[in-house]
Amino acid sequence: MRWSSSYIPTLKEAPAEAEVISHKLLLRAGMIRKLTSGIYTWLPFGLRALNKAANIIRQEMNNAGSQEILMPSVQPADLWQESGRWQKYGKELLRFKDRHERDYCLGPTHEEVITDLLRGEVRSYRQLPLNLYQIQTKFRDEIRPRFGLMRGREFLMKDAYSFDCNDEGADKSYKNMFEAYNKIFTNMALNFRPVEADTGAIGGNFSHEFMVLAETGEDTIAACTNWPNCTFAANVERCAILPPKTINSDSCPDMEEVATPNSHTVEEVAEFLHVSTKNILKTLLFMADGKPVAALLRGDRELNLIKLKNLLDVDELEFATPEQVQQLTNAPVGFAGPHSLIGVDTVIADYELQTANDWIAGANKGDTHVLHLSLQRDCKITRYADIRNAEAGDVCPHCGKPLELKKGIEVGHIFKLGTKYSEAMHAVYLDENGKENTIIMGCYGIGVSRVVAACIEQNNDENGIMFPPPLAPYEIIIINLDPKNQAVNAKCEELYVHMKEKNIDVLYDDREERPGIKFKDADLVGIPLQLIVGGKSLEKGVIETKIRKIGEKSSISAENYKADFENLYQEMLNAWK
Amino acid sequence: MRWSSSYIPTLKEAPAEAEVISHKLLLRAGMIRKLTSGIYTWLPFGLRALNKAANIIRQEMNNAGSQEILMPSVQPADLWQESGRWQKYGKELLRFKDRHERDYCLGPTHEEVITDLLRGEVRSYRQLPLNLYQIQTKFRDEIRPRFGLMRGREFLMKDAYSFDCNDEGADKSYKNMFEAYNKIFTNMALNFRPVEADTGAIGGNFSHEFMVLAETGEDTIAACTNWPNCTFAANVERCAILPPKTINSDSCPDMEEVATPNSHTVEEVAEFLHVSTKNILKTLLFMADGKPVAALLRGDRELNLIKLKNLLDVDELEFATPEQVQQLTNAPVGFAGPHSLIGVDTVIADYELQTANDWIAGANKGDTHVLHLSLQRDCKITRYADIRNAEAGDVCPHCGKPLELKKGIEVGHIFKLGTKYSEAMHAVYLDENGKENTIIMGCYGIGVSRVVAACIEQNNDENGIMFPPPLAPYEIIIINLDPKNQAVNAKCEELYVHMKEKNIDVLYDDREERPGIKFKDADLVGIPLQLIVGGKSLEKGVIETKIRKIGEKSSISAENYKADFENLYQEMLNAWK
Repeated sequence: MRWSSSYIPTLKEAPAEAEVISHKLLLRAGMIRKLTSGIYTWLPFGLRALNKAANIIRQEMNNAGSQEILMPSVQPADLWQESGRWQKYGKELLRFKDRHERDYCLGPTHEEVITDLLRGEVRSYRQLPLNLYQIQTKFRDEIRPRFGLMRGREFLMKDAYSFDCNDEGADKSYKNMFEAYNKIFTNMALNFRPVEADTGAIGGNFSHEFMVLAETGEDTIAACTNWPNCTFAANVERCAILPPKTINSDSCPDMEEVATPNSHTVEEVAEFLHVSTKNILKTLLFMADGKPVAALLRGDRELNLIKLKNLLDVDELEFATPEQVQQLTNAPVGFAGPHSLIGVDTVIADYELQTANDWIAGANKGDTHVLHLSLQRDCKITRYADIRNAEAGDVCPHCGKPLELKKGIEVGHIFKLGTKYSEAMHAVYLDENGKENTIIMGCYGIGVSRVVAACIEQNNDENGIMFPPPLAPYEIIIINLDPKNQAVNAKCEELYVHMKEKNIDVLYDDREERPGIKFKDADLVGIPLQLIVGGKSLEKGVIETKIRKIGEKSSISAENYKADFENLYQEMLNAWK
Repeated sequence: MRWSSSYIPTLKEAPAEAEVISHKLLLRAGMIRKLTSGIYTWLPFGLRALNKAANIIRQEMNNAGSQEILMPSVQPADLWQESGRWQKYGKELLRFKDRHERDYCLGPTHEEVITDLLRGEVRSYRQLPLNLYQIQTKFRDEIRPRFGLMRGREFLMKDAYSFDCNDEGADKSYKNMFEAYNKIFTNMALNFRPVEADTGAIGGNFSHEFMVLAETGEDTIAACTNWPNCTFAANVERCAILPPKTINSDSCPDMEEVATPNSHTVEEVAEFLHVSTKNILKTLLFMADGKPVAALLRGDRELNLIKLKNLLDVDELEFATPEQVQQLTNAPVGFAGPHSLIGVDTVIADYELQTANDWIAGANKGDTHVLHLSLQRDCKITRYADIRNAEAGDVCPHCGKPLELKKGIEVGHIFKLGTKYSEAMHAVYLDENGKENTIIMGCYGIGVSRVVAACIEQNNDENGIMFPPPLAPYEIIIINLDPKNQAVNAKCEELYVHMKEKNIDVLYDDREERPGIKFKDADLVGIPLQLIVGGKSLEKGVIETKIRKIGEKSSISAENYKADFENLYQEMLNAWK
């Protein structure tokens, strides 16, 4: 494509409302334009990236035996009433009436529609398993749309649904999709992790989020450093932490009190005593369904309330008030310790506290702490357990190697639905014995628009986007530095024809613009490989080149460019491996 | 694709609600399923046809220099208020409020959105012309959705919009799209006609409908028999009819009265007098804005009220009441003639009446007609004009060859919008002199879902669909008649691999079903070429073949099938030329 006949309206500055980098660059590179809050038009350059993402997804879904269909956007309310979601879904579900005053919604997801389709079609186990997908526009009426494509209202999504006779089949379908998703994001050349999306118990896990890693990601995940040999990753808040392999029973000197005037926080105590916060034991007091509970963890760690609540199996878990702390410790807030609490029957210690046996803790006395506290000797611990967020260096629950923390953007989610919809909507089949059984379902989504945004969040620098080749609207840009120079034009045309013959997506910047503008635009729109044709370099017999990701300029022969180009193209691809 | 792993749920009978053949066959061939009134899911086999249509359109739009974008489905009301269509559009426009009580609609068309986009982008004449298109789901809340995909509520549409500096440019854009549309429907191997969609005046015509010809079509068009050398076609009601080249002035015997007791209608008079209705002159009396008018035409022709009203340039045109007829003719209804009317100053005669000079007409006297009426001698004709519907044999207003009548289904519409939207929404550009001008627009639609339905309406027989190869979900079906026979399986696999290597879309019916079912299904789903592999024919060294459109079975060598196949494939393609 020639830039002169392409509509790629680049901008020097992004509109002020654009908060995140992908939103800014999508606007600046002429990929999208806003129609209204959370709703965008895809311009030609952006649509090419969107279609590349969609086609990679399509290819691997087909390879995995899923079949493409296209369901309607407008869905009748009665199906949602049947599944019970008409009441439950809330205001994100855009509802309306047609001219005959019948209720409908604009589909945010398609479990009801596909379950309705299948229950009208499937009679026998012979028709199963089945896996159907679509790539289609969805609508979710977000209360506060923001971050451009990251949290929009109308967006493109791939959603797939599997239908199996039994759990074994459903698990196989899930695994098949898990593998397809890994291939999809690998084929997109994105740095990603599949993340366990339930509490992270080892073994049968039937919900994974696929996260594109980016410093700007909203989610923090604990990922195994042994990737890709070990694929474990989990949201830090949901990542299981194992007990230590060996329990430290080193002897501990006698406990002794030390004055710590005005040192309430872990940091203040550490500073006052000239020790690391890691040497301090933190005692947190709660009221769990009205009964006092103490939770102990290392001074530098964050308690995970959800884990603690699940462990205690209580309905209400609240921090103790200053008055309650005074009662339970006989001291003001900031000096609690586990060795002499008053009326606290339940003391939960984080697993990690078993790795040492000599702690500094509150003395349950104002302005005082104790040194040499041994949990084994001095305290009555109800249970050692996993009650904190995962941190870098924690042990991978799958392979035992260290975990590291990463920021991520969710782009996909796979889920074993079980019989949630098939039971509510009576989607059944007859088994080999003529007995009626409920179909077991799974659902598998990818936010296609979001993939494009996440790709940009992951791959950019101060000059603009750095598209990975599989998602790049064009793989190569030919930059004509002097459209008035016949030799330059001729060489550009020659290169352009050559690329097209090789079926490479090529953009030829033939515009009548200054070289400075062309360089800036080329970097901004992020095409992986630049071929720069100028009068001076042509006289020297070379074409300048730049691999956008690497940045430095190089050159190839202007005359015998074909072989050089092959190597250069390969080098560009390798930069993404 | 193997049928055993394809979801193609064919049906023996179509649901009773399916009225038209395309709806029946789309359901029976497992292409679509109904979700709710006028809203359908595309199943895998149907979606393949839909995508083939979309890709042919995409290809030719790109070739014509139009660029693909993707606009949102959900559109804010304020744009529609600006264009004035929020009030005018009526109930077909599906309106709703979002969670913040702001008004939106579900896009039935995108003039407002694209005009809003362009007015924010275009500053200078240098940015024009521009032509953008999208292939996207539309919604129109039809009062009575019916005929399956022919009049659905949610459907896939290609809509393009052109933007030019001046009329000359806009006309060029229109012509460019006219040609692209001709290529699109030609490439689909559909029998179609572009139809002039205004009153059909010769020369500058800026609205065309593209009609797929089918006996079941709702529209009747007059098309030139000289196609494709002459592309003229028009709706019969809007087709211009030219005056005859030579006026007949043959001498006419003296007028004489003849008794025609109880013969009121043209047919009754013709039968009574043993003449053709073509020899009778029909006199129709009207009140035009309160004044009497007579319209004359040949006995076998239909008056076109719109043409007459436009010609008279009146606000109201009504048939004269029996009392008025009595007054104007001094006779009861059925015996009016143009030679002795009372107080009728305006007498319009159809052009065709100039081709003869000896007519039978009413005598303006009860139960009486006259023979040998000469309009030139006996009557005062105000004007000869075009006041009837076109008929087969009328002269093409473009080339002079005869017209023929065809039934058609509208699948595309191109339209020069002018400044309707750009003026209302202030979409302007600065010209070479820095002067502000309004952008001239055109819009160009194709109903992609409707193309698939129209294709089936045009191409079917009692056994099912006959897909033209470019729109066929698969071009070839390999029918395995005996999946228990090793030699048959091996030959089928060999053929299957060969077709796939040749990049032919092939469906392999490997199901464990009886041959009868497979034959019926193959005919039903309408794949253009069938390769039938059975044990008996294999023993004879042949593979049976059937070109769906031709019907008769033939055979090719089972051993050296490659060359035979090439010829057969070519023969199949030729059947569609």
